[in-house]
Amino acid sequence: MRDFSINPALLAINTATVRKQWPLDRIIEECARRDIRAISPWRDQVAAVGIDKIEQALRATGIRLSGYCRGGFFPAADAAGLKAALDDNRRAIDEARQLEAPCLVLVVGSLPGALTGSPAYHDIARARNEVRDGIAASLEYARQVGMPLAIEPLHPMQAAERACINTLEQALDLCDELDPGQTGMLGVAADLYHIWWDPKLQSQIERAGAKRLLAYHVCDWLTPTRDLLNDRGMMGDGVIELKKCRQWMEHAGYQGFAEVEIFSEHWWSQPGEVVLDTCIARHKTVV
Amino acid sequence: MRDFSINPALLAINTATVRKQWPLDRIIEECARRDIRAISPWRDQVAAVGIDKIEQALRATGIRLSGYCRGGFFPAADAAGLKAALDDNRRAIDEARQLEAPCLVLVVGSLPGALTGSPAYHDIARARNEVRDGIAASLEYARQVGMPLAIEPLHPMQAAERACINTLEQALDLCDELDPGQTGMLGVAADLYHIWWDPKLQSQIERAGAKRLLAYHVCDWLTPTRDLLNDRGMMGDGVIELKKCRQWMEHAGYQGFAEVEIFSEHWWSQPGEVVLDTCIARHKTVV
Repeated sequence: MRDFSINPALLAINTATVRKQWPLDRIIEECARRDIRAISPWRDQVAAVGIDKIEQALRATGIRLSGYCRGGFFPAADAAGLKAALDDNRRAIDEARQLEAPCLVLVVGSLPGALTGSPAYHDIARARNEVRDGIAASLEYARQVGMPLAIEPLHPMQAAERACINTLEQALDLCDELDPGQTGMLGVAADLYHIWWDPKLQSQIERAGAKRLLAYHVCDWLTPTRDLLNDRGMMGDGVIELKKCRQWMEHAGYQGFAEVEIFSEHWWSQPGEVVLDTCIARHKTVV
Repeated sequence: MRDFSINPALLAINTATVRKQWPLDRIIEECARRDIRAISPWRDQVAAVGIDKIEQALRATGIRLSGYCRGGFFPAADAAGLKAALDDNRRAIDEARQLEAPCLVLVVGSLPGALTGSPAYHDIARARNEVRDGIAASLEYARQVGMPLAIEPLHPMQAAERACINTLEQALDLCDELDPGQTGMLGVAADLYHIWWDPKLQSQIERAGAKRLLAYHVCDWLTPTRDLLNDRGMMGDGVIELKKCRQWMEHAGYQGFAEVEIFSEHWWSQPGEVVLDTCIARHKTVV
């Protein structure tokens, strides 16, 4: 297993982790100051500063992307909505290209309107079909421009609102259906927060292999967890067996970053410097 | 599909649904008054009134059990803890027998101590092994006295604290391992709240069949869900496709009750009469 204890060369920061403290250009600056070599930014954070300015900041600091967050949210109540989602994903792919991301992460969506408490329909099988069709259509464009798509299975507690793909197995089944040749253009983002509990985790990581494992996200699962969205733990503060899982990832051929992605009211309330320094320290010791 | 619209003959009430309003003897009385023919009581509710008194109340009203809650919580930090869990499950089996339950429902447990925020270990594979061994040992006694055990897969958001069995597939794999002959003595409790999101739900219900489908619990999944434990919805208020799932259950051979089990601060704050009447109304229309 690769040695993380020496330096943060294999640490990436998902910029949602300090989104409430700093705008993205400042996050890049703070990461550069700490020798963090990669980030995974969110589209709204990029848009708030301006993509050209972010592109320049990345060039100036030499910081790379470990992924781009995010495409997806394919299901919709009607044809116009489905079309709008495809258009939006095309724009996300273009942005990911401009910033030279290794992949666009897909949070695929689920029952349309559920996020605001008013689902347009309850048929999750329909949502899953719309996701399949949406990824298939986006993949055509992604192939043309050479931007891999990484399906991120989300925790089943987010199945109604955010993603109807909820296990690695389900994501990989879809990859096999849409990209049987394993071209490297379709794979998964393995975020331990969402999948740590899965009895098939090890076997599905093994199944995925280097060709499908496009991103690896870490944080921790707290006991108790007090919120379904914004109560992720810092690595080492919860029950996820981080080193065991990374061993499975590397054994399967994954050689990329371990990206820290923490949505947490607690960590958002801390100074950004403390959060980044803690990420670095925990990355060296427990990830 | 069976017609639920006529009367509540196939409605059962899990007594946790009104646990904060009434003691169990009163719950039985209120159910009898409404022609509800079955309940699934919790051990602490039984103990609070006294099991002999509950047995008499059941006889007097003709109310049957749809299940008995609960056995399980097998994992422990040490040998003494493992032994104590087995002893406790034996007592639960005896109580289930006395009350003539059709099955003892197992919430299998997970990382010992996680419920109180201090897990004794983080190795969920170890917890799963201890669960397997605990069920195997309990099954021996259960066979002797003729009390079927129903493994209840819990939602993955409860995987650290309450149950490391989190999908129907995982539960059925364990059933096949421990009871390859499908004797009827080991099966599953299918609670839609925990498993509605599963992409393999239909196929695993089909796989389970009449021999393994020992209980069927309903409520609903709210969007948003505000609490990981006590924010279940009344049937019809959320996104679970209740009728579609019951069709799958019945197609697989299930002919038992649809048991309403609602853990909800909202419904616990309503008068018990309102809760039961609402359960009856929704059972007739949307379950």
